[in-house]
Amino acid sequence: MHSHKDSNPVLEVAILDIKEGLEKNFEDTFNKAQGVIMGIDGYLSHELQKCIEKHNRYILLVRWKTLEAHTTVFRKSEQYKEWKSLLHHFYEPFPEVEHYQLVFGNST
Amino acid sequence: MHSHKDSNPVLEVAILDIKEGLEKNFEDTFNKAQGVIMGIDGYLSHELQKCIEKHNRYILLVRWKTLEAHTTVFRKSEQYKEWKSLLHHFYEPFPEVEHYQLVFGNST
Repeated sequence: MHSHKDSNPVLEVAILDIKEGLEKNFEDTFNKAQGVIMGIDGYLSHELQKCIEKHNRYILLVRWKTLEAHTTVFRKSEQYKEWKSLLHHFYEPFPEVEHYQLVFGNST
Repeated sequence: MHSHKDSNPVLEVAILDIKEGLEKNFEDTFNKAQGVIMGIDGYLSHELQKCIEKHNRYILLVRWKTLEAHTTVFRKSEQYKEWKSLLHHFYEPFPEVEHYQLVFGNST
């Protein structure tokens, strides 16, 4: 098994399926909520992208300095409670979140 | 429904599950194969990232100028045949590919 390198930034990936009809409301709420993650120590950047093929699907990509910045610093913070209360009720099903590290590529 | 904007670059997303034990071979082959997409008209950038939680999972992110650069220009090219013959036999199951466009974020 290939172990991850701690010096390599971590990409958080979550495919978000939004309850039918709530896409616009979700986008407006995300627009406000994104400030919450941007203030977390270890946060690098993020993108919310909307699926072309499936109208209620989005992908959230967040880049963190380390895995722990997301799984420990953010998820145990007061800000996470705010993030959850703003966004979690839009998801159906509740998303699986995975973390990745760069192998090859020319964008970060 | 929110329609996509043609002037907005398109993010191709594919979650790649590699046959058990072939991860290293896949990475070596991808290293050679990546030159194939980089030469396609409308290609912008790509990343192959490896999952931390699931050792035989990867995510491929490719940015294209337009949806058609991927679905028409690349998939109908001679280079696509080479890409397929190099990489497709590593995947199990065969991946679903989706396309996304930026809604919010501070990285591209």
